[in-house]
Amino acid sequence: MSVYPKAIQLIEVGPRDGLQNEKSILPTAVKVTFIKKLIAAGLKEIEVGSFVNPKWVPQMADTEAVVKALGPAPAGVTYVALVPNEKGFESALRCGIKKIAVFTAASEAFNQKNINCSIAESIARFTPVLELAKKEGVAVRGYVSTAFSCPYSGDVSSNTVADVVQKLIDLGLTDISIGDTTGKAVPTMVAQLLESLIAKHGSGRFAMHFHDTYGTALANIVESMRLGIDRFDSSAGGLGGCPYAPGASGNVATDDLVWLVERMGIQTHVGALALQAASLYIQNQLQKKLPSKQLSLLSI
Amino acid sequence: MSVYPKAIQLIEVGPRDGLQNEKSILPTAVKVTFIKKLIAAGLKEIEVGSFVNPKWVPQMADTEAVVKALGPAPAGVTYVALVPNEKGFESALRCGIKKIAVFTAASEAFNQKNINCSIAESIARFTPVLELAKKEGVAVRGYVSTAFSCPYSGDVSSNTVADVVQKLIDLGLTDISIGDTTGKAVPTMVAQLLESLIAKHGSGRFAMHFHDTYGTALANIVESMRLGIDRFDSSAGGLGGCPYAPGASGNVATDDLVWLVERMGIQTHVGALALQAASLYIQNQLQKKLPSKQLSLLSI
Repeated sequence: MSVYPKAIQLIEVGPRDGLQNEKSILPTAVKVTFIKKLIAAGLKEIEVGSFVNPKWVPQMADTEAVVKALGPAPAGVTYVALVPNEKGFESALRCGIKKIAVFTAASEAFNQKNINCSIAESIARFTPVLELAKKEGVAVRGYVSTAFSCPYSGDVSSNTVADVVQKLIDLGLTDISIGDTTGKAVPTMVAQLLESLIAKHGSGRFAMHFHDTYGTALANIVESMRLGIDRFDSSAGGLGGCPYAPGASGNVATDDLVWLVERMGIQTHVGALALQAASLYIQNQLQKKLPSKQLSLLSI
Repeated sequence: MSVYPKAIQLIEVGPRDGLQNEKSILPTAVKVTFIKKLIAAGLKEIEVGSFVNPKWVPQMADTEAVVKALGPAPAGVTYVALVPNEKGFESALRCGIKKIAVFTAASEAFNQKNINCSIAESIARFTPVLELAKKEGVAVRGYVSTAFSCPYSGDVSSNTVADVVQKLIDLGLTDISIGDTTGKAVPTMVAQLLESLIAKHGSGRFAMHFHDTYGTALANIVESMRLGIDRFDSSAGGLGGCPYAPGASGNVATDDLVWLVERMGIQTHVGALALQAASLYIQNQLQKKLPSKQLSLLSI
């Protein structure tokens, strides 16, 4: 009997968390093609953009155009967009987004550097957005970044994360992504945090979001699955990183994650070849080698 | 209470398994300097070369010169050399090697392609070497390669591996390295194999030897540690691979392994900065980027 889930659900964050951290700004049409290829690969939940002020994130300035060009999501597919405030929510609503993501961090220092406010202020800022979303029937996910380690203040205690998570749950969030922004989590830290979160809240509310800076993302995902987590954020080809987290390389590659878990007998409903096509497409558009092992094996 | 060992022992295979698979042949003095830097980093068991016919492995033709230039191993340090037959053993003995490694595989197809004989023939070939080693007080480790998957015949069943391991144990071997030559092992396969081996023989006889072709080596190491294994082969910088295994990239990087397990509270007695110096040295000598994440972070 396997201790792992029979299937996991992937949240593809390449078009937002991934591309947002690339230096080159891609044309809208390229983003749209990339997202369509991800859908063709079987990805069901895709973070397509962000309604953050384009002054801060110029790579996401065309999110509204991307979503409009995509048109209504195919049956079973959900487009997610990052929303920082009520103004962003109005933009998301206008182009038909059915799920938004709000964000905070478990580190005060990171929150200050990243979004220029305290954790409490960031939660206060998105609280009215949650009310609007409820009224409009729009789903919400909440990001808690730097849940293990902060680039400015070092390791983050699991108690601190638990406090932030409690606040989000009190606000009614049922989809909370726990982010290892710096990639410094290791399986013992993952177990310590998840055991306490799951004991209190069950495993169903949580997705894990690992970066592969130190090569430990897959080990952390296996540990998370062993503890009952079945939702993971990843990016095609291993796109991404974090411009405010020095040294942080990309999200765990969807390609490598799918290869690993399928070989462990865990279903993803993602087609490896179609996914490879999506990753190769965006790698060619960016004209840089992406970190995915699956992609690097193609060039041998 | 941690389920993991308090400390693990690393067998550094960079100077042999690593360098043997690099295209460029390094000067003897460079190999000697590399090995001395590995010793300075705290590595206690180092595979320094191979007494295989230099016609097959030209990179290892100077092993006798390397060992002689190194001189007697410092207290607590063991030099290991690969030995294919009695002639190789005589060479090893002549330069004062105190531990040899003999090798076979769990896949008939791989054994044929790699050393041109069946598994039974390869064991018969090194059996007289074991007798000589016993007489001379030389320690022996046994390699079982392709223990999960063969590049020619696909996945290898754990029963097949168990049969080969049983033969080595019957011959008196107490240090058996189980090799994931192709890098296609995943934690469920590691658990299936190790649970049966450990149930029958205990965990003390086994070292695990993972390649990071698909990015899963660290996940496999964590799973092995969870099952009680505390000896791992790795190579500085992630040197190596296997010329007979298409697509197989390097051994798991000692640098990344040390970073992970030390952060999990597991001791290695390896100094990260001194190890970095060894890996940077060999990277510069080879004039190619090695796969270690720790090394790649240095160039950001």
